Amino acid sequence: MAPLVGIIMGSDSDLPTMQGAIAVCEEFGIATEVAIISAHRTPERMVEYAKSAHQRGIKVIIAGAGGAAHLPGMVASLTPLPVIGVPVPSRHLQGVDSLYSIVQMPAGIPVATVAIGNAKNAGLLAVQILATHQAELLNKVQQYRQTLSESVMAKQEKLEELGYEQYLKQMP
Amino acid sequence: MAPLVGIIMGSDSDLPTMQGAIAVCEEFGIATEVAIISAHRTPERMVEYAKSAHQRGIKVIIAGAGGAAHLPGMVASLTPLPVIGVPVPSRHLQGVDSLYSIVQMPAGIPVATVAIGNAKNAGLLAVQILATHQAELLNKVQQYRQTLSESVMAKQEKLEELGYEQYLKQMP
Amino acid sequence: MAPLVGIIMGSDSDLPTMQGAIAVCEEFGIATEVAIISAHRTPERMVEYAKSAHQRGIKVIIAGAGGAAHLPGMVASLTPLPVIGVPVPSRHLQGVDSLYSIVQMPAGIPVATVAIGNAKNAGLLAVQILATHQAELLNKVQQYRQTLSESVMAKQEKLEELGYEQYLKQMP
Amino acid sequence: MAPLVGIIMGSDSDLPTMQGAIAVCEEFGIATEVAIISAHRTPERMVEYAKSAHQRGIKVIIAGAGGAAHLPGMVASLTPLPVIGVPVPSRHLQGVDSLYSIVQMPAGIPVATVAIGNAKNAGLLAVQILATHQAELLNKVQQYRQTLSESVMAKQEKLEELGYEQYLKQMP
Amino acid sequence: MAPLVGIIMGSDSDLPTMQGAIAVCEEFGIATEVAIISAHRTPERMVEYAKSAHQRGIKVIIAGAGGAAHLPGMVASLTPLPVIGVPVPSRHLQGVDSLYSIVQMPAGIPVATVAIGNAKNAGLLAVQILATHQAELLNKVQQYRQTLSESVMAKQEKLEELGYEQYLKQMP
Amino acid sequence: MAPLVGIIMGSDSDLPTMQGAIAVCEEFGIATEVAIISAHRTPERMVEYAKSAHQRGIKVIIAGAGGAAHLPGMVASLTPLPVIGVPVPSRHLQGVDSLYSIVQMPAGIPVATVAIGNAKNAGLLAVQILATHQAELLNKVQQYRQTLSESVMAKQEKLEELGYEQYLKQMP
Amino acid sequence: MAPLVGIIMGSDSDLPTMQGAIAVCEEFGIATEVAIISAHRTPERMVEYAKSAHQRGIKVIIAGAGGAAHLPGMVASLTPLPVIGVPVPSRHLQGVDSLYSIVQMPAGIPVATVAIGNAKNAGLLAVQILATHQAELLNKVQQYRQTLSESVMAKQEKLEELGYEQYLKQMP
Amino acid sequence: MAPLVGIIMGSDSDLPTMQGAIAVCEEFGIATEVAIISAHRTPERMVEYAKSAHQRGIKVIIAGAGGAAHLPGMVASLTPLPVIGVPVPSRHLQGVDSLYSIVQMPAGIPVATVAIGNAKNAGLLAVQILATHQAELLNKVQQYRQTLSESVMAKQEKLEELGYEQYLKQMP
Repeated sequence: MAPLVGIIMGSDSDLPTMQGAIAVCEEFGIATEVAIISAHRTPERMVEYAKSAHQRGIKVIIAGAGGAAHLPGMVASLTPLPVIGVPVPSRHLQGVDSLYSIVQMPAGIPVATVAIGNAKNAGLLAVQILATHQAELLNKVQQYRQTLSESVMAKQEKLEELGYEQYLKQMP
Repeated sequence: MAPLVGIIMGSDSDLPTMQGAIAVCEEFGIATEVAIISAHRTPERMVEYAKSAHQRGIKVIIAGAGGAAHLPGMVASLTPLPVIGVPVPSRHLQGVDSLYSIVQMPAGIPVATVAIGNAKNAGLLAVQILATHQAELLNKVQQYRQTLSESVMAKQEKLEELGYEQYLKQMP
Repeated sequence: MAPLVGIIMGSDSDLPTMQGAIAVCEEFGIATEVAIISAHRTPERMVEYAKSAHQRGIKVIIAGAGGAAHLPGMVASLTPLPVIGVPVPSRHLQGVDSLYSIVQMPAGIPVATVAIGNAKNAGLLAVQILATHQAELLNKVQQYRQTLSESVMAKQEKLEELGYEQYLKQMP
Repeated sequence: MAPLVGIIMGSDSDLPTMQGAIAVCEEFGIATEVAIISAHRTPERMVEYAKSAHQRGIKVIIAGAGGAAHLPGMVASLTPLPVIGVPVPSRHLQGVDSLYSIVQMPAGIPVATVAIGNAKNAGLLAVQILATHQAELLNKVQQYRQTLSESVMAKQEKLEELGYEQYLKQMP
Repeated sequence: MAPLVGIIMGSDSDLPTMQGAIAVCEEFGIATEVAIISAHRTPERMVEYAKSAHQRGIKVIIAGAGGAAHLPGMVASLTPLPVIGVPVPSRHLQGVDSLYSIVQMPAGIPVATVAIGNAKNAGLLAVQILATHQAELLNKVQQYRQTLSESVMAKQEKLEELGYEQYLKQMP
Repeated sequence: MAPLVGIIMGSDSDLPTMQGAIAVCEEFGIATEVAIISAHRTPERMVEYAKSAHQRGIKVIIAGAGGAAHLPGMVASLTPLPVIGVPVPSRHLQGVDSLYSIVQMPAGIPVATVAIGNAKNAGLLAVQILATHQAELLNKVQQYRQTLSESVMAKQEKLEELGYEQYLKQMP
Repeated sequence: MAPLVGIIMGSDSDLPTMQGAIAVCEEFGIATEVAIISAHRTPERMVEYAKSAHQRGIKVIIAGAGGAAHLPGMVASLTPLPVIGVPVPSRHLQGVDSLYSIVQMPAGIPVATVAIGNAKNAGLLAVQILATHQAELLNKVQQYRQTLSESVMAKQEKLEELGYEQYLKQMP
Repeated sequence: MAPLVGIIMGSDSDLPTMQGAIAVCEEFGIATEVAIISAHRTPERMVEYAKSAHQRGIKVIIAGAGGAAHLPGMVASLTPLPVIGVPVPSRHLQGVDSLYSIVQMPAGIPVATVAIGNAKNAGLLAVQILATHQAELLNKVQQYRQTLSESVMAKQEKLEELGYEQYLKQMP
């Protein structure tokens, strides 16, 4: 099964954050390719990757980076595909720098930015993009939402049953 | 031609910002529907709109809002479609509040956020999402990129010809 | 005793923060109902809850949420009751995102916002609102204030007795 | 008609901001008293005002201030009544200082904070607080909400009629 | 020896921060009085303290507070004495709220603000203020500075002797 | 009359801000010396000025600067006198950079920082420092406070007389 | 004379900011080349420019960009030459986004960042870098500093002559 | 071998951060001198150091400081050499204060600022500056870049080999 979503990151230290995106795609049965591609340390490989991705059948690219975080925007400038950016939390500025560097793109080259550190949502967004043309996948998205809703309802029932003090005690 | 992109905003005061998204879709020949839907003043109409959009053939929703800016996230929670959020600049906080309210969505419900006030990029992102399954549209995206590039090159030539001092003088 | 204050939160992970509100209401003898209601994962249940609250005798709603934090504002848009918002601290932005998303509501739909993470004050505010029409409760608020004052005075006396160095040593 | 809502501000330069609160109360037929009381320049008058307000029949206090903005919090510490704080926009920090000074109150003394510069919402919140015990006023709040909703709908109809380009041209 | 410097704080939880001010005054032989006085929980005691301080021989007041941090500014409004404000670090906003609430005072009522958490400097500033009229104390300030300088020189010598790698190893 | 307060600034573009400090000192009859001394463009003159000020009879130094704003802190490191820092508003960061550069001094070298752009308060603080040892000046400070208070009361009376709508109309 | 300093910017709208860098180089007799090169709209031309610059005799590159501002960092990743970054002020965030995107580079690829909007300093830094190996240029830098110092002294003399009130009146 | 790069810091507590700069210079075979020089505690030694550095053969100065962080800018004002500033992370503001104090220098006196806490990049920038006139050193910079690139490639290969789940498990 050829990968439909490319998930790239600037450093292997971003992998613990980015695994959320990979896991979600797997959960929805979407084949991915995962790569460490640094805008600053492997700029030419990045150019090559970004320019060829749509030719290899990739439909959406998810790019995570922290600090100056140029990877998502640079890849977006080199591909016609939609690029989803994940601001990886940074050490001193907690990801505000990553967020600004990724979201504040100039007119002409958008990056679809998700919350700081929230790679899971990047994966879901990729799924939703693919689902715009796959009725079955759209159904799965709705089932997923149903599951989210039921999980909240289950907690609510437990809370009613236990009362808030007991509930708090049994929380991890 | 049935609309493929729904472009909604919390108030008509957001329209000067949001027109960039409408214009780009038109430029790419994508039919849109434009609506003023307030998360706070017409919450039930918002629920109805968001829940039915995919059934009416809408593929992508672009939602702009400022300040507390709940519209994009609430619509995203009610539709399986990808939702693009435009943080409209706010009076006192210049759109930092709008940005945080739109981008910092919890796991499960992503909003594809673009730069503060940059509705044009929201339109382009919608086009790119549609283009993932329309080869012709993908070509148009690449031609658009080519035009951006040529426009920079034309400015560079003019700069070389005039020198920077003359160039500055003829700028508007 | 029918509940007068509805205390809701977007996730059970908000409960450790929100218990301060519940405890204060109990301390003042005010009956509460506690519920996990997510603006994003159970949007329709939220609509239902918010629209019916005042019909069931609820007088004040306290809503806590973190990050994009749409719950307080959305509930406020659906009920005529006063809504108190508690910005729950977020992981990367420490609750600045929660605060902006809750407090920066547009004209027409206020949320009475308290300090980041300070659910206790949300509870007290609910009590004070109820006390505007219950002379006895107003007395209790004043006694509570008296207790706060006495607690400061007791510490001051202890500080004078021990000196600051001994005082510091016996602090937990 | 004895005033039910006290509307105070630190300086007459806050009056252009604070008039929104006065106007809303008038619109709902709520009698108000308006006063310039500075926490820093008339501290003792502030103490007197705050301590006696509930004895004179005041049910809610709205306090606006900018910069260090101590007025709402200090009044709150001296009265058992609910105090609504309006962060008045400041010259250099646009009201972020006002917001933090008003909302970040310590446990025990809440201030119900509204958006920066949004005194209208402070007025509405006062009305909603009074309405918790006046069924007729609660009805009025719901009618007001209905009006907000209709005003959005009217704009939507006009937008559909004119198209967005004509709509933009006729905007003021 | 009658105290010349009043060192007050809003809560005993500020004492670990504020002890730096007490210790410095002691080091310079300046008698102090230390008190827990809360602007919000003991407002009237604060008024009394602030109004009488200069009559009891106090020359400078040091006030520390966190969050909304009204104590320094309110005391400053009630005394003709110079008031030094110490922004105590807050839990979620790290003291930015405390800093803004203390430093952004309106024209007419200054608070001499020092760095977040830096009560030691508040003590030194109090000493320097007293030294403007005590030649001997001014000498002590200069000797203190000399000591600071020598301590840096000693570290530099040790660094030259050990080299930076050894120096790092012996650091605590 | 030998000057008691040195008022210095990094550039003549700071003079419109700093004149507030000069005017207040004049109002209280305190002789000042005013100088343009740049930490970065005339560093050696700054060293000389700071080291000799107390020998020439100066008791307090007020230093204003914007952006990196090193002048107040550097002067403080070179004089035993109390130094008051005025953060001059900067073009892009509105004085947040100036504030941080001035207030966040390391342990050992305090700068008494006032609000962004509030040189008037720097002048008042200098007066209050001098007043710690001049009973007559302390009286003047109290009279000044009385005037502030009366000015607020006069506005309040006018507001009561005119009503808020008329008051707003006659405001400049 | 072959250019030694390459001055590039992402858009011709950055030229009014960047002219300061060009003018300073001219003032010091350093030949420059000026180019509009967009990281996002002409990414491949950027790669080519950055990779070849040192081969064409360029010694230092100055790059200005606003918002996501990837140009300086991307060029730095592709050249062994020192790259100086100028954060161009952005519309909504005043250049904080530009600053973070430029300065927060990962280990391995530095960008020498100057103040927001301060292209003049970028030019001076380029001159200082070249001067590390040209004694004559180092002399010019020192003369330039001397001129800065004299300009401050001239203003000081004028201030002493006119007094601050007259000085303010004759300011532009 | 006479040192070419002076590496200075305001306190020995900055050494753990600053060692990155020393190590990089050593790696490239550049002789350094390391010194603890405080702008505030040893201002005169700082003046002496900065004024004489270029006479002793130093070509570049790297200065690290935290908080008010005046060292880099003050040294820059006293030397014609390029000065590289390292914002050392501060306790409460995480280095935002250090960054602003270092980067926001006025026109005339640049400081080449690197990322918060990123002394390694300061060292690399110094090497690149020296390399502008040493072909061999320029080669080394390019080899270093090659190594960075290869290190990324090696991680990518390992990732492909192990898969992301195994890769995560073997991460430290």
